Amino acid sequence: MEHAVKARRLPRVVRERQMVDAAVRCFARHGYRAASMDEIAELAGVSKPLVYLYLGSKEELFTACIRREAGALLGAVAAGAEGAGLPPDERLWAGLLAFFTYAAEHPDSWMVLSLRARTQGEPFAGELARLRDEIVGFVAGLIGEAAREADGVVTGRDVNALAQALAGAAESLATWANETPGVTAKEAAATLMNFAWAGLGNLMKSERWSPR
Amino acid sequence: MEHAVKARRLPRVVRERQMVDAAVRCFARHGYRAASMDEIAELAGVSKPLVYLYLGSKEELFTACIRREAGALLGAVAAGAEGAGLPPDERLWAGLLAFFTYAAEHPDSWMVLSLRARTQGEPFAGELARLRDEIVGFVAGLIGEAAREADGVVTGRDVNALAQALAGAAESLATWANETPGVTAKEAAATLMNFAWAGLGNLMKSERWSPR
Repeated sequence: MEHAVKARRLPRVVRERQMVDAAVRCFARHGYRAASMDEIAELAGVSKPLVYLYLGSKEELFTACIRREAGALLGAVAAGAEGAGLPPDERLWAGLLAFFTYAAEHPDSWMVLSLRARTQGEPFAGELARLRDEIVGFVAGLIGEAAREADGVVTGRDVNALAQALAGAAESLATWANETPGVTAKEAAATLMNFAWAGLGNLMKSERWSPR
Repeated sequence: MEHAVKARRLPRVVRERQMVDAAVRCFARHGYRAASMDEIAELAGVSKPLVYLYLGSKEELFTACIRREAGALLGAVAAGAEGAGLPPDERLWAGLLAFFTYAAEHPDSWMVLSLRARTQGEPFAGELARLRDEIVGFVAGLIGEAAREADGVVTGRDVNALAQALAGAAESLATWANETPGVTAKEAAATLMNFAWAGLGNLMKSERWSPR
């Protein structure tokens, strides 16, 4: 009997994953304040006390959501942009495609990271700032690599500025793509790649725009 | 005597402006929650009851700050990008320069609009969304004009996507520029113009980047 009961219990790690899955969906749908622990527990198929026991307060649960989803997004982008042998533009393209694909395939995750978390102040804004720094650092690495290969006049400060611009553009475009019916991840990634690379590509060759 | 007292009283509109000036500075410095009505009143040189009487609750005062600063930013960008006779790239350059100059010269204003307001949830996020829509619409107008002149293959959806990308890039870069010692508004604007226009310029000529 004892054995049968144990066999039906899911391991804690599985239960926790189900709870965080449910929480991401509720926070994405209703926002942090309006989301209820009752709905999260119901969606996860567990009792509310078990949610508190495993994952703590609503604030801790939201933080757990942000951390997990940020890790998943970073992992997807890093995996997409792997391939040490590829030229920097191909790696950037692969990274952008992975980013927009992640946002399109996990709209709740993207909603929590891009909107729900950043509109809730501290301590969540700090979690987001760390995610952003990692993404910007990753993009700066790719742009820096391209700059060294091209041997142009792009300085370290230019590289950081361009990485900030590209990260901001990607963030803005992903939200727009998810809100606009019929825009695919590939289309959004291609738009940004064309915007960014044709521009970046010219910069690398020291071909700058200047006022007439 | 009555006359002397009246002469020393400032018109309500002047007092209100002083209060909102003080509030923008306090909200920028401390964030919405930590900013105190006491400090705002002291900085404005008035009593706290007068702040409540003229501008209402802390929430109403913060909303008044966002509206006024958003209007000032939009006005600066629109004035900068005026000049119907100029080609679209020159107008975009003038608009970007006006935008980065505004953010650099009014760091408290930019802090409130870009960070303090958007991390506070509703109703402030809604005010910000309206500002963003106006800026994106304005940028889309300039890009659309360039696309028509160039007679390329840029569609209406491309124009909207590019406007979203450019607005996100500008937002991200302005915050970075204000946080990075020694980066001038002109340098930030030039970086983005080069990034954007060389890329946009190629797009307009139907010269697209494509994977090898």
